Amino acid sequence: MTYPVTAATTPHRLRDRVGYDRAAVHAVLDEAWYCHLAFVADGAPAQLPTMHVRLGETVYLHGSTGSGPMLAARAAGGLRVCLAVTLLDGLVYARSQFHHSANFRCVVAHGTAAPVTEAAERDRAFAALVDKLGPGRAADSRGVSPREHAQTALLRLELTEVSLKSRAGAPADDPEDLDLPHWAGVVPLRLTPGTPVPDAGTAAPAPAYLPS
Amino acid sequence: MTYPVTAATTPHRLRDRVGYDRAAVHAVLDEAWYCHLAFVADGAPAQLPTMHVRLGETVYLHGSTGSGPMLAARAAGGLRVCLAVTLLDGLVYARSQFHHSANFRCVVAHGTAAPVTEAAERDRAFAALVDKLGPGRAADSRGVSPREHAQTALLRLELTEVSLKSRAGAPADDPEDLDLPHWAGVVPLRLTPGTPVPDAGTAAPAPAYLPS
Repeated sequence: MTYPVTAATTPHRLRDRVGYDRAAVHAVLDEAWYCHLAFVADGAPAQLPTMHVRLGETVYLHGSTGSGPMLAARAAGGLRVCLAVTLLDGLVYARSQFHHSANFRCVVAHGTAAPVTEAAERDRAFAALVDKLGPGRAADSRGVSPREHAQTALLRLELTEVSLKSRAGAPADDPEDLDLPHWAGVVPLRLTPGTPVPDAGTAAPAPAYLPS
Repeated sequence: MTYPVTAATTPHRLRDRVGYDRAAVHAVLDEAWYCHLAFVADGAPAQLPTMHVRLGETVYLHGSTGSGPMLAARAAGGLRVCLAVTLLDGLVYARSQFHHSANFRCVVAHGTAAPVTEAAERDRAFAALVDKLGPGRAADSRGVSPREHAQTALLRLELTEVSLKSRAGAPADDPEDLDLPHWAGVVPLRLTPGTPVPDAGTAAPAPAYLPS
C-alpha cells in the first residue's frame, strides 16, 4: 500500500532515497515525538514545532487556540501546511568529504490542516496524544476540563500527499577512494530515555508504560 | 547580547518560553546535527531537512545544486526561508492531561538564504560542515573536487531575526491537582551515539574525534 506520487512529492534528485510505502511512513510518524509544521504567514514561510499523533490515515497536531497557525486555520476553516517529521539514525563518515552524510528517515506530508471541532473526535485525538507518551497514560491522568479544552486547539491533517526520504547503511565512497587511509563508517544515533525524574510530591512509583 | 525582537519573532502566547539570547541560540544550532528549512514553493509551504553549520552569525545550509530550494535560491539570488532547529530534552508527565508537555529547545530564524558563490567562503563553510561531525575530520578526509563542488550547493543565512523557544524542568500542574494519585515527572531524552560501525575495508582505527 503506497501513497500516490504527486508533483509535490516527486523528488528533484536522489530518487532512490524517496518512497511512498504507507507502513514505513506510519512507523516514522509513530516513533517520532514531535514534528515541524510549516505554513505561510503574510506570504513568508513560518514553522511551528509541535507534538502529533497518528490515527489511521489522519495526523492530529496539538496547539494552543492562541497560536498563529491555529488562529489562521480556524479563521479560514483550514491552513495549507507542510508537515515534516525527521528521525536521525546516524552520522556517515566517508573517505571523501563529499560523501559525508547522515542516515535518517524523514516523512513530508502536504495538505490542508483543519481544526477539529467535533467533541468525540477531539476527545479521541487528545487521548491518543497522551497515550503516545505511554500506553494507558490517558486513563492514568486527570481528564481535560471544558476550560482547558477552550485553550487547546487540535488540527487534523489527512495523509494523502506524503513521501518518505531516507538513507541507511554504510558510506558510499567512490571506488578510487576506497584505499585512502581515512576511517570510514557510521556512528549510530538513538534518542535514548534516561532515568525518570519524579516531580516533587509524587508518591506513585514510576509507571511501567514510560519509554525506556 | 540578544537578537532584536521583530513581528516575526514575537510570540502570540507563552511569552515566558521565548528568548533572544545569542549564546543560547548558538548553543542549540551547534548541538543539533540537522535543521528543517521551510520555504514557499508555488505559493504553498514546503520543507527540506538538511545539515547546517554555524560560523559566527551565519548559518550555512548544505544541499544539492539540483534540489528545489537551491535552484530557487540561485534563480532569484536568494530564497525567503524559515529555519527551525529543535532539540528534544524530555517528555513531561503531569497529573492532568492538559499539562502534559515536552522539554525542548527550538531555534527559529527568518531571513533570506543566499547561495554561497565565493570560493574561499565556500571552502571555509564546507570544511566547517565536515568538522562539525568531528573536530579535525576535514583534514582527515579527501577534499572536494571541482566536479563535486559543481554538484553541491551551500546557502548562507544571516542570524538577524531569531528566537529561541524552550521549556525545561518539572511538570506545571495546577495546585488543586497536586494530590492526585498519578505519577508525575520528566523522562529525559538524549540523542546518544552508539558504537561506531566501520565500513568494509576500513583499516584505520576509529578516530578520537567521533562523537561519543
